[in-house]
Amino acid sequence: MTADLPDRALELRSMVTAQGTLELSLHDVPVPSPAANEVLVRVEASPINPSDLGVLVAGADMSTATVAGTPQRPIVTATLPAGALEGLSMRVDKPLPVGNEGAGTVVAAGSSSAAQALVGKTVGIAGGAMYTQYRAVDASACLVLPEGTTAKDGASSFVNPLTALGMLETMRRDGHSALVHTAAASNLGQMLVKLCNRDGVPLVNIVRKPEQAELLTSLGAVHVCNSASPSFSTDLVEALKETSATLAFDATGGGTFASQILSGMEEAANATAEEYSRYGSTVHKQVYIYGGLDTSPTTLTRNFGMAWGVGGWLLTPFLQSVGAEAFSRLRARVAAELTTTFASTYTGEVSLAGMLRPDAFHAYVMRATGEKFLVTPQAHP
Amino acid sequence: MTADLPDRALELRSMVTAQGTLELSLHDVPVPSPAANEVLVRVEASPINPSDLGVLVAGADMSTATVAGTPQRPIVTATLPAGALEGLSMRVDKPLPVGNEGAGTVVAAGSSSAAQALVGKTVGIAGGAMYTQYRAVDASACLVLPEGTTAKDGASSFVNPLTALGMLETMRRDGHSALVHTAAASNLGQMLVKLCNRDGVPLVNIVRKPEQAELLTSLGAVHVCNSASPSFSTDLVEALKETSATLAFDATGGGTFASQILSGMEEAANATAEEYSRYGSTVHKQVYIYGGLDTSPTTLTRNFGMAWGVGGWLLTPFLQSVGAEAFSRLRARVAAELTTTFASTYTGEVSLAGMLRPDAFHAYVMRATGEKFLVTPQAHP
Repeated sequence: MTADLPDRALELRSMVTAQGTLELSLHDVPVPSPAANEVLVRVEASPINPSDLGVLVAGADMSTATVAGTPQRPIVTATLPAGALEGLSMRVDKPLPVGNEGAGTVVAAGSSSAAQALVGKTVGIAGGAMYTQYRAVDASACLVLPEGTTAKDGASSFVNPLTALGMLETMRRDGHSALVHTAAASNLGQMLVKLCNRDGVPLVNIVRKPEQAELLTSLGAVHVCNSASPSFSTDLVEALKETSATLAFDATGGGTFASQILSGMEEAANATAEEYSRYGSTVHKQVYIYGGLDTSPTTLTRNFGMAWGVGGWLLTPFLQSVGAEAFSRLRARVAAELTTTFASTYTGEVSLAGMLRPDAFHAYVMRATGEKFLVTPQAHP
Repeated sequence: MTADLPDRALELRSMVTAQGTLELSLHDVPVPSPAANEVLVRVEASPINPSDLGVLVAGADMSTATVAGTPQRPIVTATLPAGALEGLSMRVDKPLPVGNEGAGTVVAAGSSSAAQALVGKTVGIAGGAMYTQYRAVDASACLVLPEGTTAKDGASSFVNPLTALGMLETMRRDGHSALVHTAAASNLGQMLVKLCNRDGVPLVNIVRKPEQAELLTSLGAVHVCNSASPSFSTDLVEALKETSATLAFDATGGGTFASQILSGMEEAANATAEEYSRYGSTVHKQVYIYGGLDTSPTTLTRNFGMAWGVGGWLLTPFLQSVGAEAFSRLRARVAAELTTTFASTYTGEVSLAGMLRPDAFHAYVMRATGEKFLVTPQAHP
């Protein structure tokens, strides 16, 4: 530990109480000492991803939130919906750290040469508990950012880039040749447009608003369907015919979206079929649900034959399934294209204490498509 | 062609008309001459499986059915529901043959030695158009029944036995170790109970009535849950905990059954988990829908984490995916255990003309669980 490092630092924690409330607060924690193969990263930038909100907000109704404490140490309390506590029993009264990924400077290192080699470097890291000021991680978990890249550039170098790459990798491994993506105007969706263009993969983007369609078109998207348009059903089938896409990634999860996409794929597949089959086309049609923007049930009308699948898709198990070599290859690509294909944009920046102010948490909980906040843990409240 | 064979024979056909009706009738067709590697089978027994009803009835409302023609050549006409015609456009005005499987005697053969070797044998066959009196099939498609086995014994030697074996094979290939089966009192379900007992595979049977539970218990079933019982939810979770089943085959398809099974699997998996995970257990939970007894939409509440899948499962593509060697192994097992593990029972027998009588078609369209008809095409009307 170098002499100019503090002993203690701030860390955001989210706790569900047995009384059915959510409590967000800043904890005073010791700055960790890196083990032999670890480095200590001064966290300078960390995004608030949709995937962070589950742990952070735990489904609480943030319109009930009140803020107590001091401006330096705010304490937010909000009410959980009736019945929500049952599914959260394993985290009751445990103040959980939050934040999947971030970036910062390596300010100390353990004795191993791999760890020592990283001192002074700007690195992207993942692994949770990133809404904190100092984080010790294994040296091998660090993505060294290219010369001239800032922590802010590298804050989102894991979740979205690897998810976009994971979608393409899944497509290739499962034998599909084109993709459908819902909530396509998101930061991830914009990334996917650039990535598919670069790799020559046909992509059908589904958005909800004309201005989102314009944004994606300006990034080079060829097929954009607006689900609010009266011609959506026919637009979708037309795009599915043109792209032959038989794999979709759906961020919404609820309602009839997955079903409508499968039906559209079936209609596109049958447009070229010559024989009647009671079981529908033999083309396998797959929808992976990777988010839950719509928490209502998924309703499948099953008017798409028998060759279909719907399932959950999650980045971590996907990365585990591909093996270390493929993971390294994907990470190297992220580093190389961090300020081009995988560049993220942020709506605003907040300090750790700033995350607990009403104007901030109302904004990030709203999850407006394309809006994204960056946490800067070194900033003063 | 031997001298004592007729030139023409009867074949049942199902036709959807452009006027929105279903027409079932017997056609006078030429008895086929077998090609070099084909045999001519006199079809003596063929079951009416749930999987035959789709082509046969085409979703028509059989309560509207009227019968014209003669007792020897009845013509059944029934009305299709509004809107049904759209999904059937590829079969309009085409009289389709029906019947997936059957058994009979090889009465003529082509010139190849493989075909000649089968003359006089009793064989099980599949491949459609079995509600007919004579059927030419490739010699390699015949399952030679063991000495002393009748055509009636071998009538159901493909669809149900290979489906039951296919479920177990899918379980092993996908890394599961136990099964859940709905509509478990069916002929297929009874077979699966015997098969799983023989192979030592834990099986959770879901039925709708106490007498069905008794039937399965008498066959050796250990875990039987009655979905009409008030304790069904807890019974199911208990059985899932005891068996660690993470794969289900659902014959019903509609409603919340698949969702409830996935939730139960998740609850069973989490009963032993030690750490909170916002994404649920990492255990992959899968439901395959292989039938559509309930045609209402499939509703998934997604309260079972992210490691899950739901999809269609169909015998033919499954058999294609396993390859010729595995297929031969499965078929050989069916032949060896045809009158034990894979024995079928029938509620009644009908001739081809008999299938078109109201008492018969009302009974087989009702699809009462466990009831099954056998068509005997050589019987007089």
